[in-house]
Amino acid sequence: MAGQKFRHQHRVTYAECTLGNHIYYARYLDLLEETRGEFFRALGEPLLKWQEADTIFPVVECHLRYKAAARYDDLLDIELWVSDLDRVRLGFSHRIVNGAGAELLLASTLHACTSVGEKLQRLPEQLVQKLKPFKAVATMEETS
Amino acid sequence: MAGQKFRHQHRVTYAECTLGNHIYYARYLDLLEETRGEFFRALGEPLLKWQEADTIFPVVECHLRYKAAARYDDLLDIELWVSDLDRVRLGFSHRIVNGAGAELLLASTLHACTSVGEKLQRLPEQLVQKLKPFKAVATMEETS
Amino acid sequence: MAGQKFRHQHRVTYAECTLGNHIYYARYLDLLEETRGEFFRALGEPLLKWQEADTIFPVVECHLRYKAAARYDDLLDIELWVSDLDRVRLGFSHRIVNGAGAELLLASTLHACTSVGEKLQRLPEQLVQKLKPFKAVATMEETS
Amino acid sequence: MAGQKFRHQHRVTYAECTLGNHIYYARYLDLLEETRGEFFRALGEPLLKWQEADTIFPVVECHLRYKAAARYDDLLDIELWVSDLDRVRLGFSHRIVNGAGAELLLASTLHACTSVGEKLQRLPEQLVQKLKPFKAVATMEETS
Repeated sequence: MAGQKFRHQHRVTYAECTLGNHIYYARYLDLLEETRGEFFRALGEPLLKWQEADTIFPVVECHLRYKAAARYDDLLDIELWVSDLDRVRLGFSHRIVNGAGAELLLASTLHACTSVGEKLQRLPEQLVQKLKPFKAVATMEETS
Repeated sequence: MAGQKFRHQHRVTYAECTLGNHIYYARYLDLLEETRGEFFRALGEPLLKWQEADTIFPVVECHLRYKAAARYDDLLDIELWVSDLDRVRLGFSHRIVNGAGAELLLASTLHACTSVGEKLQRLPEQLVQKLKPFKAVATMEETS
Repeated sequence: MAGQKFRHQHRVTYAECTLGNHIYYARYLDLLEETRGEFFRALGEPLLKWQEADTIFPVVECHLRYKAAARYDDLLDIELWVSDLDRVRLGFSHRIVNGAGAELLLASTLHACTSVGEKLQRLPEQLVQKLKPFKAVATMEETS
Repeated sequence: MAGQKFRHQHRVTYAECTLGNHIYYARYLDLLEETRGEFFRALGEPLLKWQEADTIFPVVECHLRYKAAARYDDLLDIELWVSDLDRVRLGFSHRIVNGAGAELLLASTLHACTSVGEKLQRLPEQLVQKLKPFKAVATMEETS
């Protein structure tokens, strides 16, 4: 693993929890979306700008491995890096850790690059250049 | 209260619950939307048909009174009736009861009638006629 | 209106939006919960601390007035103040404004003060003292 | 593929959709939970009964492949079968198809069998016997 990682923090709310005091298994995907949104903003163009330029990144595949439970009011550290970067596809890996350093979730999401009308298109070269520093040596398969 | 009531059932999932084993306070609004959707379908034109005919019913106001907690796996009875029916506005009252007959929620939602572009327009006369049998004598204020 | 207001910011995600590019009407209640959570944290004791001390604040009533739509990627300003403060009840008013200054939502939530076992109890005096500066002169009825 | 499949239907609501008129990628996991809940009910013991008997099935891994978008008001057919059944683990495969027969989602979830206190325990023999007819010959890897 050589590339940079993007980091985002998230405070767990009641809305995200279910019985037994842990985040409901689907809500982690909401947190990953929030993190990717902040990542694109940090790169300089929020996803909204790309959408206005007729480029969106629909999710085509997700893989989640739940290691331990996130609890109400936990302050989570969410790490994101690029695991896949080819002509028309973009993959992210994510790792969520709680304040005590316990690893809670490993997850990967694979995205197509399409027009708003969902026609496949090349990843914009300008974006590829910005994503490269976050590209890990390890592949998506290895990391989750 | 003279009018008919529409009835819909909903089984509570983990996704809807939070700590302490009860439905999260916002999720009741999801159930009310589901119920209104089934109500319009039962009247003959699903909301999707109205939307395709350039008529939508955005919520402009909600009022919820929580009386007791809905629990995981409860089978809820959701009653709906029309509390308001004027030229450009439509109000619903809802009452949720659990399998043991306990009253859990009283709620009212007030909707505007607009085009998809959100311009106010008259409630379609055809819809008004179908809604009338569900119009209660009591006002929204009295019922929730 | 004389009291202080607590302010919290929230960035709108895809997860919170629905058709027509606006926040789904129930999700605003998630944002209000997030804001109250940060408010209690700012007062010195997060809600989790109160819960561990056997004091919780279940919502007994909500009132929401939707004025305009929050859009994807909007950065929302959420204001909160105390509208009600009596022996066993606590009311908050909230106002959501977008980056352009448009008022999107006015909402009030009324909470009971109970044990975790949901027995009514007095609001802790220590909390009442911290809440008082945020108490508005206007009543809940006037503000939403 | 030799085993039986369990089938459940779900009507898509506004609450589940996001921009661009399709179900938000995380909400499919809510639908899969709903389907598993109805599957256990159909087997004779709802998940709540197992929980009361100190047996729960926390998700340890999910894999989702999005093939096409579910739209508002679609009536979805959700198929479920057992892909994994060993001493302490239970795997499900799910397939979501819309009314026009288009395949929208393939997903697998892997669950541990634990006490409510999250200690691993053997799958109850009574449950194993009921699950066996739904066990596919194909493995989880092959099906999603």
